[in-house]
Amino acid sequence: MQRHPRNPLIEPDQVVPSAPGYRVRGAFNPAAVRFDGEVLLLLRVAEDCPAREGRVAVPVASIEAGVGRPEILELSLDDPDVALKDTRGIVYKGLDYLSTMSHIRIARSRDGVSFQVDDTPFIFPGDASECFGVEDARVTRFGDTFAINYTCVSPDGWGTALATTRDFRTIERRGLIFTVQNKDVSIFPESIDGLYRALHRPNNSGFGRPSIWYAESPDLIHWGNHQCILRPRDTFWEEMKIGGGAPCIKTPQGWLQLYHAKGRNQIYSLFTVLLDLEQPWRVLKRGSIPILRPEMPYETDGFFPNVVFCNGVVTWEDGRVFIYYGACDESVCLLETTVAELLASVDAA
Amino acid sequence: MQRHPRNPLIEPDQVVPSAPGYRVRGAFNPAAVRFDGEVLLLLRVAEDCPAREGRVAVPVASIEAGVGRPEILELSLDDPDVALKDTRGIVYKGLDYLSTMSHIRIARSRDGVSFQVDDTPFIFPGDASECFGVEDARVTRFGDTFAINYTCVSPDGWGTALATTRDFRTIERRGLIFTVQNKDVSIFPESIDGLYRALHRPNNSGFGRPSIWYAESPDLIHWGNHQCILRPRDTFWEEMKIGGGAPCIKTPQGWLQLYHAKGRNQIYSLFTVLLDLEQPWRVLKRGSIPILRPEMPYETDGFFPNVVFCNGVVTWEDGRVFIYYGACDESVCLLETTVAELLASVDAA
Repeated sequence: MQRHPRNPLIEPDQVVPSAPGYRVRGAFNPAAVRFDGEVLLLLRVAEDCPAREGRVAVPVASIEAGVGRPEILELSLDDPDVALKDTRGIVYKGLDYLSTMSHIRIARSRDGVSFQVDDTPFIFPGDASECFGVEDARVTRFGDTFAINYTCVSPDGWGTALATTRDFRTIERRGLIFTVQNKDVSIFPESIDGLYRALHRPNNSGFGRPSIWYAESPDLIHWGNHQCILRPRDTFWEEMKIGGGAPCIKTPQGWLQLYHAKGRNQIYSLFTVLLDLEQPWRVLKRGSIPILRPEMPYETDGFFPNVVFCNGVVTWEDGRVFIYYGACDESVCLLETTVAELLASVDAA
Repeated sequence: MQRHPRNPLIEPDQVVPSAPGYRVRGAFNPAAVRFDGEVLLLLRVAEDCPAREGRVAVPVASIEAGVGRPEILELSLDDPDVALKDTRGIVYKGLDYLSTMSHIRIARSRDGVSFQVDDTPFIFPGDASECFGVEDARVTRFGDTFAINYTCVSPDGWGTALATTRDFRTIERRGLIFTVQNKDVSIFPESIDGLYRALHRPNNSGFGRPSIWYAESPDLIHWGNHQCILRPRDTFWEEMKIGGGAPCIKTPQGWLQLYHAKGRNQIYSLFTVLLDLEQPWRVLKRGSIPILRPEMPYETDGFFPNVVFCNGVVTWEDGRVFIYYGACDESVCLLETTVAELLASVDAA
């Protein structure tokens, strides 16, 4: 497996802000899909609003009839109604506002390496359930329809919403498919025995550690038969929590899933797990060590240091696999590997 | 509204333990349903295991092939592998065990007041997702099938499972319908426009306060279109969290839901809310004060003081409503009222 020599492939300064007064802090954690002869990345773009001395400014989505527009709430620090809330935001007249807001932006490439980032958002917060931002998309293809799931954040918590598209220009919102608190949803690229399948990551913190769960659906919208199938191990790398990544890769040996793990010292790394083809809630094998961990300067030093996180993978007919990953919640990088190498990495029972 | 003069109707000493060495600590929070000329209550029965001096004992469900049996894990406090974990349990060889375990037991009555409690459990923990207990059932009738949802607790967290029955003797388990952490699920007694509807209460604690959510399902098994519809108010009674109760009562004015609220000083009380008949995610009106709050000695003094909690309601053809409620996580009580009185209680916008 090899990091691409041109890493990071996409950095924040390549992204045009959503609105005047906005500043792009991160372009990271992309979904990935082959479409119409191109590789499309669905970037998470995080923006904040610089403020003048003595003032504070936060990005807000002004939402009307299902359409959101980027606006700025700028306030004086002398305003008695303003309270700072650690580094993540402010409280104004009793309501919370976050200091950064994310949306989903498309980057397009012919070769999977050189990307051109769209000038405008693809999915911008569009209803009350998304008003704090939309994050970390995954794309799963079903014929000529693409299912996009993403984390939606609001004062009511963070859950997972579904949107569908056929052209990567317009989307249809299909509502929250996994209620709060739940993210890291990875939908399998085929239905099995007439049911769609997914991995998800509910927050059971305080009663067990955040683990990978399995669910089934007749229609991608309604989900049930939830089962906990993969838990963090007591290791340096997985101690805190784990969560699913891009849609599984189908191999003759089983469904291959790349998952992220948060270990000691807040370090995020990437692992592989192999699931049974017919009964995908059955774990066959699991990698004993990470296939990728923060080592390069762009992985160890950035907006959120020591994070590698993957929610987008592209496979090629010759067995090559392009693993796009976010580094430091800031940039997009590429790890090149093959299905054979990934299968070899799942070495533990 | 009147508390029944014979309250509490059911107390722990009326319940035969599940196994020798078990002790019943609470018989409370019942689901309620009219069936075959009787009122059935589906009690939550909480049991612990008294231990001899210098020892500790906890109830455990020994689970094999979907059938659980009550067993006891008794250990010496001198055992270096035993660690006490506040009052809720122990850690033994790295695994958690809770000091009490709940199951669901049926109590039967001709008049809705004098109950005979079955000698054996109705729903006992039967798989890994229930191994710490099953709690707080709700029953919703659909023709000759009854949907029973209940909280299942395991080391992976607490979620909501569904079982169905036609005879209240055998059940069919249908899996987790709301993944962890989620409880207080209240399924509407009719499908609307071909979809089943439910209220649920995900744990968004730390990002918003636990609130009442709405969801839809084509089949009672798979759920989606999650929406947050009712949040705690900043009042003495609701400050901490709220959660749904028994299935809604259908009235010409709307769906009437009795919900519980946890306020300051850990006090639980009961409120009413009215939802739109056709669009049940729309809140029409809400009670400004509790319809019931801990006042009587059996409500203020017990296993968990100052708790009234309702997940079982029976309606009669003449408009009377029997509200069965748990008091102090210990006993079952009855509040008698009418649909008209409940509708009059929803007085606020």
